[in-house]
Amino acid sequence: MTTHRLTPLAASLPSTVPFVGPETQERARARPFKARLGANESVFGPSPKAIAAMSGTDIWNYGDPESHDLRAALAAHHGISADNIMVGEGIDGLLGYLVRLFVGPDDAVVTSDGAYPTFNYHVAGYGGDLHKVPYRNDHEDLVALCARAAEVDAKLVYLANPDNPMGSWHSGTDIMAALDGLPAGTLLVLDEAYADCAPVEALPNISVHDPRVIRLRTFSKAYGLAGARVGYAMGAASLIAAFNKVRNHFGMNRAAQAAALAALEDQAHLREVLHRINTARVRIAEIATHNGLTPLPSAANFVAIDCGRNGSFAKAVLDGLIARDIFVRMPFAAPQNRCIRVSCGTDADLDAFAAALPPALADARAHADSR
Amino acid sequence: MTTHRLTPLAASLPSTVPFVGPETQERARARPFKARLGANESVFGPSPKAIAAMSGTDIWNYGDPESHDLRAALAAHHGISADNIMVGEGIDGLLGYLVRLFVGPDDAVVTSDGAYPTFNYHVAGYGGDLHKVPYRNDHEDLVALCARAAEVDAKLVYLANPDNPMGSWHSGTDIMAALDGLPAGTLLVLDEAYADCAPVEALPNISVHDPRVIRLRTFSKAYGLAGARVGYAMGAASLIAAFNKVRNHFGMNRAAQAAALAALEDQAHLREVLHRINTARVRIAEIATHNGLTPLPSAANFVAIDCGRNGSFAKAVLDGLIARDIFVRMPFAAPQNRCIRVSCGTDADLDAFAAALPPALADARAHADSR
Repeated sequence: MTTHRLTPLAASLPSTVPFVGPETQERARARPFKARLGANESVFGPSPKAIAAMSGTDIWNYGDPESHDLRAALAAHHGISADNIMVGEGIDGLLGYLVRLFVGPDDAVVTSDGAYPTFNYHVAGYGGDLHKVPYRNDHEDLVALCARAAEVDAKLVYLANPDNPMGSWHSGTDIMAALDGLPAGTLLVLDEAYADCAPVEALPNISVHDPRVIRLRTFSKAYGLAGARVGYAMGAASLIAAFNKVRNHFGMNRAAQAAALAALEDQAHLREVLHRINTARVRIAEIATHNGLTPLPSAANFVAIDCGRNGSFAKAVLDGLIARDIFVRMPFAAPQNRCIRVSCGTDADLDAFAAALPPALADARAHADSR
Repeated sequence: MTTHRLTPLAASLPSTVPFVGPETQERARARPFKARLGANESVFGPSPKAIAAMSGTDIWNYGDPESHDLRAALAAHHGISADNIMVGEGIDGLLGYLVRLFVGPDDAVVTSDGAYPTFNYHVAGYGGDLHKVPYRNDHEDLVALCARAAEVDAKLVYLANPDNPMGSWHSGTDIMAALDGLPAGTLLVLDEAYADCAPVEALPNISVHDPRVIRLRTFSKAYGLAGARVGYAMGAASLIAAFNKVRNHFGMNRAAQAAALAALEDQAHLREVLHRINTARVRIAEIATHNGLTPLPSAANFVAIDCGRNGSFAKAVLDGLIARDIFVRMPFAAPQNRCIRVSCGTDADLDAFAAALPPALADARAHADSR
């Protein structure tokens, strides 16, 4: 057999996926999930106007490679210029481009141990040297991130605020202080995927021209368009322009651009969804407490539930839920992996979760006690 | 101002776009086009079933990262295994991943001078060393491509069959012979974006397990889904699996997957479109001949028209058409740039083209003669 002549870096990479999708799990189980609460999607759906905009698109046309109309609307929404906005194929796609622009073999990058694995996937994919600092009390540790960045001369520091998978958040003031604590030449990658769900004080008041930071937002969470793949970056114009060096210019789906624009324009729907997210967070917390578990405070569209023991125990709980057709996920790294992570759902979804949790817990406890 | 610490390669790249989109041109002109005949989209549109499938999608769900159902249907359609198929964000996206897997700084790549610029964009983007061989009689030159590949020890050789921008094609037999003429260790990147429009003898009978070639197909052309961004690669399972090292696993739009699946299942619609493409090719050729120009034979959904003089003259004709609200494009490199390239359109589109061409030609001739 002929061996393909991949680059040494590509040859060294595993053929892995950061997350196994729920459809893959359903095929393996040969049974659908009853409640899809594992991917922090918005079960409340997008604005009906977004759906209508999708259907109304001339899909035989390539999308506008500049995403002009969407960028103009986002610029107006945020009170900034369209030159400070890059639209891309979800935050995942934008993170890939960003890492490609900054990270070559052995370049240092800093993140938290257990933070977003897709960022790590991109850093590995470009040969970067990833340094991880522990969470501190279930929060990403701003001081430690800055200190490590200085120590290793990091090109990028990743920070999600609110955090995934823990749901914790820092105040905007603390984020600003961290920015001042970064070494010169380090770019803060501020992933604000869950910003729409967060209290306003969690959003730092950073000038979009500040060259020390790039902020990432998405239509996949509160706007309910995960399947459309629309994210955007906000930052200094020169940094935003650099994406044009490497991005797939015609990569944006035309209907997705139209859907995101319509979703943005329907802020009433967003407010309604945020209300439902809040109600669901309270309900998830109640279910957890009712079962003797500890829900963590969340500024996102999910709740991390501390199962009170170690990672194996939480994994057993998770497996018990999956066996009962409830799709949930859990943090990858200790000590956060004592938790399971449950996305906000409809009343029916959470009824199903509430029914499945007690037997899943009982099984996990019996299993743990028998060892 | 802080300078961002891009990688040396990224810093060296221009912030360019392989193609300026028609919307960008419309904004610059502050006037819409009357006929959109420049991007080889399918004005005849996709199957209505594809549109229905898009609207029926739960777009709040992330797409299946394995594109399982679409791959299964494609596998059945081609009589191969799903392990030999990778679905991606259009051929553009797949070319980006492929180049990333194979091409590092100074790795040699071969293409034809004037062939698909987005491939060249990706090669430049990963620091590859791109070697170009001239077209021969408006065809990509198989013998010269193989010879140059041997000379420079190319990792990849790009070949579009049918060719864009000329519409010319090679027989499958000749492609097979070229494959045998490639040096060991060179991968043929066979871009078959227009294969659906081509005569069956243009399709080589290559085993999908043959490690010397990867074939690329798309739903953007005859299937009428350019805005959805769905392409796929067919090749040896180990090569296909390598895409999992680098791709944006959750990058596929969920509605696009559903639309492509429905489009594939509606072969009757495809046949109808191919009939209309054929009719439009004949009409474009008639319009060209009627104006004293030479249409080139085409196996694609467009026709290259030889304007009979040099590149400046063809550019003047193109400018005259654009000034008259007809969006067309033209080849980038001599001598192919003596042509303009006109996509198949509706009767109304081609009526508009037929009306605009004589004055555009007259202007171009007057301008050329006055110099």
